[in-house]
Amino acid sequence: MLVNGKPGNLISIRDRGLLYGDGVFRTLLAENGKARHWPLHYQKLKHDCIALGIICPEAALLSRQLNDLLLEHPDGVVKLIVTRGEGERGYAPPNPGKSTVIWDISQPPSYPDDRGEKGIKVCYCRLRLGSQPRLAGIKHLNRLENTLATAEWSNTESDEGLLMDGNNNVIEGTRSNLFMVSQGKLITPELSRCGVAGVQRDRVIDWAARHKMPLQTRDIAQNELLHADELFLVSSIIGLWPIRELEQRHWVNFPVANLIRRDLDGENA
Amino acid sequence: MLVNGKPGNLISIRDRGLLYGDGVFRTLLAENGKARHWPLHYQKLKHDCIALGIICPEAALLSRQLNDLLLEHPDGVVKLIVTRGEGERGYAPPNPGKSTVIWDISQPPSYPDDRGEKGIKVCYCRLRLGSQPRLAGIKHLNRLENTLATAEWSNTESDEGLLMDGNNNVIEGTRSNLFMVSQGKLITPELSRCGVAGVQRDRVIDWAARHKMPLQTRDIAQNELLHADELFLVSSIIGLWPIRELEQRHWVNFPVANLIRRDLDGENA
Repeated sequence: MLVNGKPGNLISIRDRGLLYGDGVFRTLLAENGKARHWPLHYQKLKHDCIALGIICPEAALLSRQLNDLLLEHPDGVVKLIVTRGEGERGYAPPNPGKSTVIWDISQPPSYPDDRGEKGIKVCYCRLRLGSQPRLAGIKHLNRLENTLATAEWSNTESDEGLLMDGNNNVIEGTRSNLFMVSQGKLITPELSRCGVAGVQRDRVIDWAARHKMPLQTRDIAQNELLHADELFLVSSIIGLWPIRELEQRHWVNFPVANLIRRDLDGENA
Repeated sequence: MLVNGKPGNLISIRDRGLLYGDGVFRTLLAENGKARHWPLHYQKLKHDCIALGIICPEAALLSRQLNDLLLEHPDGVVKLIVTRGEGERGYAPPNPGKSTVIWDISQPPSYPDDRGEKGIKVCYCRLRLGSQPRLAGIKHLNRLENTLATAEWSNTESDEGLLMDGNNNVIEGTRSNLFMVSQGKLITPELSRCGVAGVQRDRVIDWAARHKMPLQTRDIAQNELLHADELFLVSSIIGLWPIRELEQRHWVNFPVANLIRRDLDGENA
């Protein structure tokens, strides 16, 4: 673990990351000392910092710190947090602020190997995501909605929960982005009012462009999901998992999801 | 500063308070070694912990820690944070969790003394509060909305910013609760979809009941404010500040606000 470039696992109780969730983060997989798609994660981190007015550390600095971390721990789930740092008491952001940079690495995930092939069972969460265009898409530290929603399904047979907004549009999984395959088209939810736009989602969108598969980003009503040809969830940690069961509907074959998954996994190598 | 009962100003980078804003907090004033309205703050803390499924430390334990803190620092702004503590990687809350308890104390606020008498200038924030009934009213650590909204007015002539929801109902100040006086009635915004229900707001509601002044809790449309006889803001830190200026409207006399302020201040003694 590194805090502001030095080995350590502690931060100040006056850090705005703790006080207000005033920061952003990334989670990515490391294998054999290499972090997957780090440049894409850095782009997202920078975008999210700018959106919140947080000073984003230079790519070269973070790359060096990441390398230091991976020299000691070559495999696992890497977490990078950048907060707005410390300031005076109160909500007003310090100007200029000095960001806090935190690196952590955990054990590689222990999900069953066959989820990519066989798919997973998912449920709907009762919690509805609030609408906040100023924060939508950003992977920020205000994640109580994800915590409460995950508590709904984490002790059940489901492997992930789907989150809807107040108008029953399906937005994402609690820790993943959603894609629907319908009549040869890919459709993924609009994330301009809520949700997190992950790196793996961008990779699927990029795959679709390269393979000339039509892709729409738009609201997806809950009742559309049961009529989908395929559904799948993606994230930097899980990769791509097709959905095999959602309420009364079961899917057996996932030809498009399989194709995309194999291509994306191949690009990880 | 105390962390889990021991002197210190550091917490783990794996604390869910940092990772997800998964915790609640209180801010209160201490004078001459006595914390104002601590029993009311404890009630709120407990209510908020229960709402999020966080284990709330016993009142006796927190009171002892508060006393330890005030022995060293008898005056200032006390902040108490209770987080869900550490857990496995991921959003799922640990079960059972071990809460983290953090105490901090800062300098007493340095607001001009005459704000209670003369009132303040306020503006409307552009940011609209998102609607999330599961979190509404709770003083939790997901405070990016307050941070972004405060950044809108903190370098202007305004002393506070008013926050509205997506339907242009006025909900609160960025760090205070709002009351409107209209035709001998007190009206305060409904906080069932967004906003924070503070201790000082409860004290005003209680004052109204004791003094047989009619009080309504309901949605307040933005355009109602300009027709108000009086407007005032309250919090445990600011006490009670009347609003003297909001856009084109100016208020000169605040008879009801003054009456309530003097009564509440008297009960602080």
